Amino acid sequence: MLRLSRFLPSAFKRSFDLKESLWSGSLTFQQAVSTSAANLDENLSGKRYASYTVFKGKAALSIHPILPSFSKLESGGSRVSRNGSVMLTFFPAVGQRKYDYTKKQLFALSPTEVGSLISLGPAESCEFFHDPSMKSSNEGMVKKSLSITPLGSDSGYFVNITVVNSVEKTNDRLSVPVTKAEFSVMRTALSFALPHIMGWDQALTNHHPSPAISKPRVERPHPDSEWER
Amino acid sequence: MLRLSRFLPSAFKRSFDLKESLWSGSLTFQQAVSTSAANLDENLSGKRYASYTVFKGKAALSIHPILPSFSKLESGGSRVSRNGSVMLTFFPAVGQRKYDYTKKQLFALSPTEVGSLISLGPAESCEFFHDPSMKSSNEGMVKKSLSITPLGSDSGYFVNITVVNSVEKTNDRLSVPVTKAEFSVMRTALSFALPHIMGWDQALTNHHPSPAISKPRVERPHPDSEWER
Amino acid sequence: MLRLSRFLPSAFKRSFDLKESLWSGSLTFQQAVSTSAANLDENLSGKRYASYTVFKGKAALSIHPILPSFSKLESGGSRVSRNGSVMLTFFPAVGQRKYDYTKKQLFALSPTEVGSLISLGPAESCEFFHDPSMKSSNEGMVKKSLSITPLGSDSGYFVNITVVNSVEKTNDRLSVPVTKAEFSVMRTALSFALPHIMGWDQALTNHHPSPAISKPRVERPHPDSEWER
Amino acid sequence: MLRLSRFLPSAFKRSFDLKESLWSGSLTFQQAVSTSAANLDENLSGKRYASYTVFKGKAALSIHPILPSFSKLESGGSRVSRNGSVMLTFFPAVGQRKYDYTKKQLFALSPTEVGSLISLGPAESCEFFHDPSMKSSNEGMVKKSLSITPLGSDSGYFVNITVVNSVEKTNDRLSVPVTKAEFSVMRTALSFALPHIMGWDQALTNHHPSPAISKPRVERPHPDSEWER
Repeated sequence: MLRLSRFLPSAFKRSFDLKESLWSGSLTFQQAVSTSAANLDENLSGKRYASYTVFKGKAALSIHPILPSFSKLESGGSRVSRNGSVMLTFFPAVGQRKYDYTKKQLFALSPTEVGSLISLGPAESCEFFHDPSMKSSNEGMVKKSLSITPLGSDSGYFVNITVVNSVEKTNDRLSVPVTKAEFSVMRTALSFALPHIMGWDQALTNHHPSPAISKPRVERPHPDSEWER
Repeated sequence: MLRLSRFLPSAFKRSFDLKESLWSGSLTFQQAVSTSAANLDENLSGKRYASYTVFKGKAALSIHPILPSFSKLESGGSRVSRNGSVMLTFFPAVGQRKYDYTKKQLFALSPTEVGSLISLGPAESCEFFHDPSMKSSNEGMVKKSLSITPLGSDSGYFVNITVVNSVEKTNDRLSVPVTKAEFSVMRTALSFALPHIMGWDQALTNHHPSPAISKPRVERPHPDSEWER
Repeated sequence: MLRLSRFLPSAFKRSFDLKESLWSGSLTFQQAVSTSAANLDENLSGKRYASYTVFKGKAALSIHPILPSFSKLESGGSRVSRNGSVMLTFFPAVGQRKYDYTKKQLFALSPTEVGSLISLGPAESCEFFHDPSMKSSNEGMVKKSLSITPLGSDSGYFVNITVVNSVEKTNDRLSVPVTKAEFSVMRTALSFALPHIMGWDQALTNHHPSPAISKPRVERPHPDSEWER
Repeated sequence: MLRLSRFLPSAFKRSFDLKESLWSGSLTFQQAVSTSAANLDENLSGKRYASYTVFKGKAALSIHPILPSFSKLESGGSRVSRNGSVMLTFFPAVGQRKYDYTKKQLFALSPTEVGSLISLGPAESCEFFHDPSMKSSNEGMVKKSLSITPLGSDSGYFVNITVVNSVEKTNDRLSVPVTKAEFSVMRTALSFALPHIMGWDQALTNHHPSPAISKPRVERPHPDSEWER
């Protein structure tokens, strides 16, 4: 029998999470402001932020979704110009229940990487490699990898990030054990997020004002028809 | 072959459920008003309530979702300041199809506890412990536990709440058998609710007025980029 | 290898389905109007209808979702006063690809019956019993049952309705074989519909105008708190 | 252990995908405009486009959802007059990471075909046949088939399209290997899309202005009741 909360009662855990997520949430926001300056201010107004964070002995892991960007088309419609992602933020513990957010490491999952994570079997692993400087003169200088490996006995996964910086000669590694229950939250949240970070929820919303204006069906092929050619 | 409705035809069961849920729904609401006073009235206007209730021989169990709270940020955006939850309400039977709602016991599932419940295998159990007075001078006075244990043969679960009050010297236990079909409703409703109680549905909705105002892409890193540092 | 469309190419099947669903859709609507008279007209304006229909040799089966009803509360909020359902409509074939919609038989699935259907294993069956006259003087006069039984080899299910009318001395039975692919559509559509027919989608939508009006957190218990008593 | 990004780092892959999807997205749009002329312009304004594309050695495969059409009813409501679909677009490689979009082949999945795809077991296959000229004088001239067959070892699927044109004496075949992670994205996106292309999301949205106008319940049967006859 799973006894999730035996040693750390969940009432306590919850209030603790609350405080921490307030704190990390506000940091995330201020950082966004500090790096993005005035030109994004108008876009940020009305924006809502939400994350899911697990705090463990040596590090914490927070995940939050990032919306896709759309570009206006001449027709007045728009299309996805940049996929959204799911950002993983790792930050190390520097004491009992104290975490240093300034030493955070980021890893943004693409839609396909999200697909890999949510289809992971109980005994399966996956690993992703990113190079932040890909295609620039610094290509290969920094190598990031994210691996997810089973804890064993269907009890969850280790989520590990490694960042090798060959310029600064640093090699950072943070590792967070994620319980089966926590991974179930991540899997459910990521499955929910996936169509949204791909923009499918918006493509599947009817933005037409009203069906009243629909014309009689014409016989020539519909632009969405596979018979057009 | 499952014969769910053999002894209690579901047409009957439905009308019965209807009456009961009306009754319990209105009680829930009045209680909310009586304890929350005037300062929440404005928030409650427009709010919609929905639950799922199973009535069994010795007790009934009702579940309903609770929205997260958002706090305004200086930028005009907002972030989750308090996660939502899924509230379980147990109330004992005091006669044939009569339940005493004043003797109810509450248990609020956090997102991670919801994750544990929806990933429960047919033969698995889970148990959660809450202390309502955690971190106050009454810490440890009241202990609540919720356990979910299989009925056997993949036919559902027992959902049990135990509340031990060492001040009032009481020890209450309510137990509700939940069929496989009813648990399937709970699992589906909770999986649906999970991203919402975490605020992810709101974080994934485009609150930007229009893509028309999007500026030409700039080369400096996007604030949501993992390459920012 | 499944060859779903070998004998009835799906391009053909689709245009056929289209015509049929247009026809059945308009009948459904007209019937709603004829039995509901003027007092519902205002509610029907703006309402959208959608169904999923499979046409087989001896009968057709169409399913469509029905929204829950909400009742206004004194606070200005509202609560579910009547659960929604998923309506199954069977109608017999009266010739090649001709169906007699006037001989239709209806069966409305409650949330728990939907839960039973979507959790059905490949070799499992379920059966539901309804009495349309339950609790009236005609109780027991008409007995409806719906059974879902596997076709075998994980290839789908038979969906059968039996209606025994002991007044009119009739015993109607309609049976529709549903392929694995068609049942997958039903399972997906019903899983999507379930939180909606329970009203949870509306309970989980933030109807508050803006987070700007949120007050400083007060120390007395939140009305939604499990610690309230 | 899966090493998805070992040989083609995903940071690189993502920027590559971005460029490609921009390009294919704009082509898709322009084509829609060119074939649909002015009468659809008003409908296209406000429409949003999103797709999911995998680029492989010999061909690429892009999928995007298409909304259902609704027809206005006399009551003011509306019903699905044409189901949506999920369009698969194949285009061949004509060099390293160069694809010829003018040689594309289209295949539109109906709801039931989507149901078949999302319920496919790891070792199962499916095949669909379409005739673009069904019921016209050109019936049988062009035969399209789509097959999905396992790559083996639960590592994904081959998605193949064959188009035989007996007038032009052509026989085109494009084949795209899809990894388990990519198929997981497709399965998740298609499961999300399915209720939308059937119009169920719109049928399950409350378009009633307010519950305040709800009348006292009348005793005659509700038009949505199964007891109406």
